[in-house]
Amino acid sequence: MVDVPALVAQAREGRPRAVARLISLVEGASPQLREVMAALAPLTGNAYVVGLTGSPGVGKSTSTSALVSAYRRAGKRVGVLAVDPSSPFSGGALLGDRVRMSEHASDPGVYIRSMATRGHLGGLAWSAPQAIRVLDAAGCDVILVETVGVGQSEVEIASQADTSVVLLAPGMGDGIQAAKAGILEIGDVYVVNKADRDGADATARELNHMLGLGEARAPGDWRPPIVKTVAARGEGVDEVVEALEKHRAWMEERGVLAERRRARAAREVETIAVTALRERIGDLHGDRRLDALAERITAGTLDPYAAADELIASLTGQ
Amino acid sequence: MVDVPALVAQAREGRPRAVARLISLVEGASPQLREVMAALAPLTGNAYVVGLTGSPGVGKSTSTSALVSAYRRAGKRVGVLAVDPSSPFSGGALLGDRVRMSEHASDPGVYIRSMATRGHLGGLAWSAPQAIRVLDAAGCDVILVETVGVGQSEVEIASQADTSVVLLAPGMGDGIQAAKAGILEIGDVYVVNKADRDGADATARELNHMLGLGEARAPGDWRPPIVKTVAARGEGVDEVVEALEKHRAWMEERGVLAERRRARAAREVETIAVTALRERIGDLHGDRRLDALAERITAGTLDPYAAADELIASLTGQ
Repeated sequence: MVDVPALVAQAREGRPRAVARLISLVEGASPQLREVMAALAPLTGNAYVVGLTGSPGVGKSTSTSALVSAYRRAGKRVGVLAVDPSSPFSGGALLGDRVRMSEHASDPGVYIRSMATRGHLGGLAWSAPQAIRVLDAAGCDVILVETVGVGQSEVEIASQADTSVVLLAPGMGDGIQAAKAGILEIGDVYVVNKADRDGADATARELNHMLGLGEARAPGDWRPPIVKTVAARGEGVDEVVEALEKHRAWMEERGVLAERRRARAAREVETIAVTALRERIGDLHGDRRLDALAERITAGTLDPYAAADELIASLTGQ
Repeated sequence: MVDVPALVAQAREGRPRAVARLISLVEGASPQLREVMAALAPLTGNAYVVGLTGSPGVGKSTSTSALVSAYRRAGKRVGVLAVDPSSPFSGGALLGDRVRMSEHASDPGVYIRSMATRGHLGGLAWSAPQAIRVLDAAGCDVILVETVGVGQSEVEIASQADTSVVLLAPGMGDGIQAAKAGILEIGDVYVVNKADRDGADATARELNHMLGLGEARAPGDWRPPIVKTVAARGEGVDEVVEALEKHRAWMEERGVLAERRRARAAREVETIAVTALRERIGDLHGDRRLDALAERITAGTLDPYAAADELIASLTGQ
């Protein structure tokens, strides 16, 4: 058994191995999962969670890396969660150089973790929020959650961030693709990356039009900004950070941040509860309680609805 | 509100409108669903449920009609549940003449009901067993459940019968198709219909081979018979009834019938319980309990797992 309090203390000191170990414990439905989650609870709620999503090829990893650099310059501790089945991020903290993330691999103020969809009980909707809790409790000031944004679950994860960044690139018919994937509605900040290429202005205009940004809004409503970047050269990245900080300040002022976090917590509880109930019912195959109920139904002394009520009641008595 | 006891009494007298009304009540998630199910429970358990499945074109409707005639000659009351989105059966009891079922439409000893997949809460896996209960309680001696047998849910329904009949026809490459659809394993009785066509013997041989019927079995094991029929002319239908009665007697001797019925009831309870739990969790969106739990999580005083436990406990208190 793992000494959870010691592990949590080490993680808070910034030891990457302790963080890695904790994430593995919460990812893998370990018997100590509950102990870990209970230990983390009082330490969470400080990190600012930013979701980054967009189609492959828009430069997500490069943008994430550039944002890490910007936050590091500001002295922040940064966590990166790369949620992508096809991600170049591997297991712990090592990265392919093609994503320019290697510069952060030896930085103790940065923790990078990849997350694949395979094999996780309940999928990423279940495990990503847990990993965010670990990074939060470990003292990260900012957590960047990078998702592919093509599948339903990726969009769901991105939409659970405090602030969602939607990335596009010019000349990819990307606006329409993004609209199809359902990621256009979730952006709090839009980034047109590779802005040195032809068509960047056209993409920004198209986006502006699709989002109805030219239309009147109620005073005090958030108007998502569109920021142009060349992430590979770091251009425009400070403007992205500025837009994020503005959105955060706007959310704090209006109570939106607390509201989003409550909604995220509620979804997390629901996901855990549904998974747990399904498992409990699954476990009942061949169980005496279910057999006994079935026996009474076939004898005509109980109807299936009353039996289902009894079953549900017995599930909670466990 | 419907007078349920009166309706049940009328159904038991064989009034088709009362039967139709009861099925509509159990299909449609009516507020009186539980009342109906409770009233039916003590009246069920008498009907012999036969599932008929096979690819389109094998003559399922014709075979069902021929079986109805055979059971009617023996003085049995017969219920037919046609589970098929593309079924020619419509709503209550009227049928297209192409299926030769119209001869039974005016027979008070026969109740025919079609069931489509559209719009039913939880799908057919949820509503078909309920309709079977109504027909059972209404005094049907035999209930023929006809399904297409291409989708997972149709196979599931067919496999929940007391006895499952798998129909094939010659010259359709049908053995392999049936194997693919997963219906070959569920047959207790196999019927090669349209046996006056070329290739009927070859189909029967192929089937015999695929099922390993030539191989040795433990004494007392059920060896599924293969019966050849020309249902349109009624040929071989008495042999099918004979095979069904043999299978029923075999099941009763060995306790298999009671076992199958318990398994069917258990699956029914599970389906209802899972549907109910999902609905209850769905209902909690914006509910104070979930909001309060989320509030405590964001405050760091509760972890999501402990919250899920509380949520599950509160669901059963309803």
